[in-house]
Amino acid sequence: MLTLHDSLNFEKNDFDITAYGEVLLDMISREEAPLKECANFTRYFGGSPANVLVNMQRLENKTAFISRVGKDEFGEYLTEILENENINLDCMQYDQEEETPIIFVNKSKETPSWIAYRGADINLQINEQIYNKIDNSSIFFTGSFILSKNPARATAIKAIDYAVKKNKIFAFDPSFRANLWPEGNKGSEIIRGLLAQSDFIKPSLDDAYHLYGQDHPENYLKKYHNDGAKIVILSLGKDGVLLSDGSTEPLHLPVFSEKVVDVTGAGDSFWSGFLTGILKGLPINEAAKLGNAVAAFKIQGVGALSSVPPLSEIISYYDIQPIEGGNFNE
Amino acid sequence: MLTLHDSLNFEKNDFDITAYGEVLLDMISREEAPLKECANFTRYFGGSPANVLVNMQRLENKTAFISRVGKDEFGEYLTEILENENINLDCMQYDQEEETPIIFVNKSKETPSWIAYRGADINLQINEQIYNKIDNSSIFFTGSFILSKNPARATAIKAIDYAVKKNKIFAFDPSFRANLWPEGNKGSEIIRGLLAQSDFIKPSLDDAYHLYGQDHPENYLKKYHNDGAKIVILSLGKDGVLLSDGSTEPLHLPVFSEKVVDVTGAGDSFWSGFLTGILKGLPINEAAKLGNAVAAFKIQGVGALSSVPPLSEIISYYDIQPIEGGNFNE
Repeated sequence: MLTLHDSLNFEKNDFDITAYGEVLLDMISREEAPLKECANFTRYFGGSPANVLVNMQRLENKTAFISRVGKDEFGEYLTEILENENINLDCMQYDQEEETPIIFVNKSKETPSWIAYRGADINLQINEQIYNKIDNSSIFFTGSFILSKNPARATAIKAIDYAVKKNKIFAFDPSFRANLWPEGNKGSEIIRGLLAQSDFIKPSLDDAYHLYGQDHPENYLKKYHNDGAKIVILSLGKDGVLLSDGSTEPLHLPVFSEKVVDVTGAGDSFWSGFLTGILKGLPINEAAKLGNAVAAFKIQGVGALSSVPPLSEIISYYDIQPIEGGNFNE
Repeated sequence: MLTLHDSLNFEKNDFDITAYGEVLLDMISREEAPLKECANFTRYFGGSPANVLVNMQRLENKTAFISRVGKDEFGEYLTEILENENINLDCMQYDQEEETPIIFVNKSKETPSWIAYRGADINLQINEQIYNKIDNSSIFFTGSFILSKNPARATAIKAIDYAVKKNKIFAFDPSFRANLWPEGNKGSEIIRGLLAQSDFIKPSLDDAYHLYGQDHPENYLKKYHNDGAKIVILSLGKDGVLLSDGSTEPLHLPVFSEKVVDVTGAGDSFWSGFLTGILKGLPINEAAKLGNAVAAFKIQGVGALSSVPPLSEIISYYDIQPIEGGNFNE
């Protein structure tokens, strides 16, 4: 059983983290209007697991990606970005028939609306190389987008089972949106089933609402723990995060930055800082501060991949305490 | 057997033409660059059968559309345009799971490259309403995009068989691009099989190359007739069209306009003028002139749906001879 003051030890592995999931084009409207009235769109690099890996690689972790894009020019564009970040791409798959996924989103002051064009991502196939990559990694990470449709879902479940069996740390982003799932609301059962296998989950209030209905943050924490989640990091948006291990009092961390330019990818930045802290041997509550710190740098710049300063600078700027075994100078 | 000097008679029908096929978003890059380098895109109304119907409706024909889009905001956008043009949409289908199709195209001085995101269009289902619409139409029109994947292909073949059995005029755009077909080059056999059922086909030189390999225009005409096509209108791009009935000497029609602003949708405009002429009782060679005239007006404006003047103006401007039975003043 994990508590917020625990820190983890890892054997030496080829990779600090392997992520499974989507890399895609975010097509963001230039107009601030309903999607059906938007005529102009700009293409961005996107996909939560891909963003997490890019950030973690920039924070000097060794990362590997399991993903699938179309054998098309959009897939080439995304692959080149991942290559330039030095992410290991042994487990990238290229689909001959289905296209690179795209999400259209309208620029909006309220909750934006979106249309997802799934394609190659749904066809992610399990293979020996994937098991091998998990074997050689300290952390296995995945989100929920890739779980919504088969065969990628079946592949994910096999990969998660394998990671858990091999005592890897499993970090999971349990977002659930029924309209992405062919079985609609029943998809929530699959997400809830995976909570018991996960060491760290980081839902937002919105994610919690879609999984459990309207409730208070503290009750959401209880529900996640009841479903078997070990450490829950509940994101409260501008109000920061609640950290909970299910046994001690939840810990509240405010947002570290008062300046907010663009929150796109803030959650992915939090994951990157948090997991970097965990890998460095920080206690969970200190790792969460590092997550907050990386997110704070992110939201002061535009885009999901706005520049992140070197790790040492983030740590000294936000006065995060390294502990014994957490070596920031290696 | 049809010759270029024949004209056709039609019983009174509720609809002049019913088209089967795709309506979609054309996402055209703003940059003139390879697709993978293009970051900005603008959305346009697209889909060849939809363009043909819009133009024919503007040329005062009664039209009906059999198509399928996603139950999403892009589908709403396209549907509203079709509604505003007064196209009959009894046979529009809305897909709960698959999205409205999109084609990304880069702006290019050479042949543009493209990536097609298929979706709802592939799921077009046959039903009694479709047969009923064909029963009440003079002409049935379809292209090849919608033939490339099942179940839409099976639906198309049933609809074509029905139209031919009911002695409807079948106008067909036999383009073939292997990369749209799951079976690759074997898809060409299906296109070739449909030539024998068609009364009018209008391939481009490019289409002919993809179906038969490199050859001369006259030989392409022979090959189409050998496969059973009755009237072939071979589009030569800036060199106009070759008209052939397989028995008399092919007729060459030059392009009517020297000013060229944008050729997007020129082929669809030709179809609209040509079929309007056929419906009005013009001999085939005169109807082709009307096709050329409508295309000439189109290429002097930007966009696939640039404004087309009233039919009477087109006819007098290009001195197209109405004949007995071809009443332009009704």
